[in-house]
Amino acid sequence: MQIGMVGLGKMGYNLVLNLLDHKYEVVAHDVDLSQVSSIENEGAIPAYSLEELVSKLKKPRVIWLMVPAGEITEHVLSSLENMLDSGDIVIDGGNSNYKDTLTRAEKLAEKGISFVDVGTSGGVEGARNGVCMMAGGPKEVLTYLEPVFNDISVTDGYLASGKVGSGHFLKMIHNGIEYGMMQAIAEGFEILEKSPFDYNYEEVAKVWNNGSVIRSWLMELTENAFKKDPKLSEIRGVMNSSGEGKWTVETALDLQTAAPVIALSLMMRYRSQETDTFNGKVVAALRNEFGGHEVVKAKN
Amino acid sequence: MQIGMVGLGKMGYNLVLNLLDHKYEVVAHDVDLSQVSSIENEGAIPAYSLEELVSKLKKPRVIWLMVPAGEITEHVLSSLENMLDSGDIVIDGGNSNYKDTLTRAEKLAEKGISFVDVGTSGGVEGARNGVCMMAGGPKEVLTYLEPVFNDISVTDGYLASGKVGSGHFLKMIHNGIEYGMMQAIAEGFEILEKSPFDYNYEEVAKVWNNGSVIRSWLMELTENAFKKDPKLSEIRGVMNSSGEGKWTVETALDLQTAAPVIALSLMMRYRSQETDTFNGKVVAALRNEFGGHEVVKAKN
Repeated sequence: MQIGMVGLGKMGYNLVLNLLDHKYEVVAHDVDLSQVSSIENEGAIPAYSLEELVSKLKKPRVIWLMVPAGEITEHVLSSLENMLDSGDIVIDGGNSNYKDTLTRAEKLAEKGISFVDVGTSGGVEGARNGVCMMAGGPKEVLTYLEPVFNDISVTDGYLASGKVGSGHFLKMIHNGIEYGMMQAIAEGFEILEKSPFDYNYEEVAKVWNNGSVIRSWLMELTENAFKKDPKLSEIRGVMNSSGEGKWTVETALDLQTAAPVIALSLMMRYRSQETDTFNGKVVAALRNEFGGHEVVKAKN
Repeated sequence: MQIGMVGLGKMGYNLVLNLLDHKYEVVAHDVDLSQVSSIENEGAIPAYSLEELVSKLKKPRVIWLMVPAGEITEHVLSSLENMLDSGDIVIDGGNSNYKDTLTRAEKLAEKGISFVDVGTSGGVEGARNGVCMMAGGPKEVLTYLEPVFNDISVTDGYLASGKVGSGHFLKMIHNGIEYGMMQAIAEGFEILEKSPFDYNYEEVAKVWNNGSVIRSWLMELTENAFKKDPKLSEIRGVMNSSGEGKWTVETALDLQTAAPVIALSLMMRYRSQETDTFNGKVVAALRNEFGGHEVVKAKN
């Protein structure tokens, strides 16, 4: 099978290498043309524009987007829409919001173009050597693509999760769970750090990875991080996020579902981005108002 | 080395079998005398009383308690205290509160008895075939016991975590993290259950265990649970707890440390134990008071 890959960032580039390993013919494009040249050296067919990519693919075309979610995905899709023909297949492998996915699938369906949403997990290493993928889309299209998805996934790392949108939805929830798990691990180490004991955190994470209930890939990453920097003294505790945790919480609200730990994990990330807070000022001011409690003066 | 095991419940019984596999001579006691007879058939030396256990052990004695934390541990320890001699070693392998451990170690030290606290993880299966252990205690005593602990642990599953108390403290934090991780996983599946998609949860957990960021032993257990009962329809969502999560939160409070996700995981367990809540009544009453909003009448 021939596959057109749009987006040669860390994930897309490594997915192409993975596809090439499995003898797929890959036509590859990125707005960064140097990435196109690089991937040509690896054995992919270069496309220096979307038009070129489309023209080099046999029908029915399979075009895989691995570009940032949001505006860029939207832009690429509306460009492609007019270049593609009925029967073609577009795969969105990015972290798109499932609501956008539903809208896009409907729009493309009007032209007879099938849309498949793939949630991708496992990081860059996974993209290169075996990824975890959850795909939503029309059943017959998923069946058609299944050999590709199985080839580039780890064993049992591919799931046809249901109708269109279900792949991105599942990946969103995966990330929401990830937020909660990470925050729980992090709070545990925070208490250890303030405890009367003197732990070696690399050793702690290591023993927890061997036979304990909380052994996990995240704990392995924790072990790696403490191996590099025993007290993480080179890192500030600022926790950024890229949208999927927020969408998980928004979805929980839409569905009127209690997901307090995931919601609080997200809000702890927001809190971490501020060095001082307005809510802190308000509480301090109120304590001062009613009880004359001293406030910590701001440095102006 | 000779080891005296007190407590032949699921954990203790399987630890004895594990020790016997590694050619240790085990003298075993339980208040349930039928357990003593059973373990005799497996090759342990039976002791039908604590006195018998103590008398059958050569000095310096090594006595391992695997009994419920709290009153029972306290009771066994105060009985043993008067039977043991200076140089003997007592290991508490249960889930004792680290504060109790500190007090007990001090008391036993007055008589020259060494106290070692071992946090044990990995469940019954771990106890039988390879456990995860975190041990606190005097350095030279831990060095003396290290071969035993290594023999019955999984590879790299044993950590000498520091001075006395540090083993139970670490196990407590381990369980706190476990609460948060479990709640995060559970909230994710709750949102899936209320989503517009129709997921097979066993398949979802399975794909998440293969290559994803949240792969973990807990997710493997989730997969097993959904395999047995696809919608968990045989189980009510009542989440009990056995104390270590509560201690983690209490410790966070003592140390004035923010651990909101672990704290909320614990409180969600408490919430799950009630079918109706008084706080719910209060909010409903207030909405009625100020806005005339209808209340749901209680069935008396």
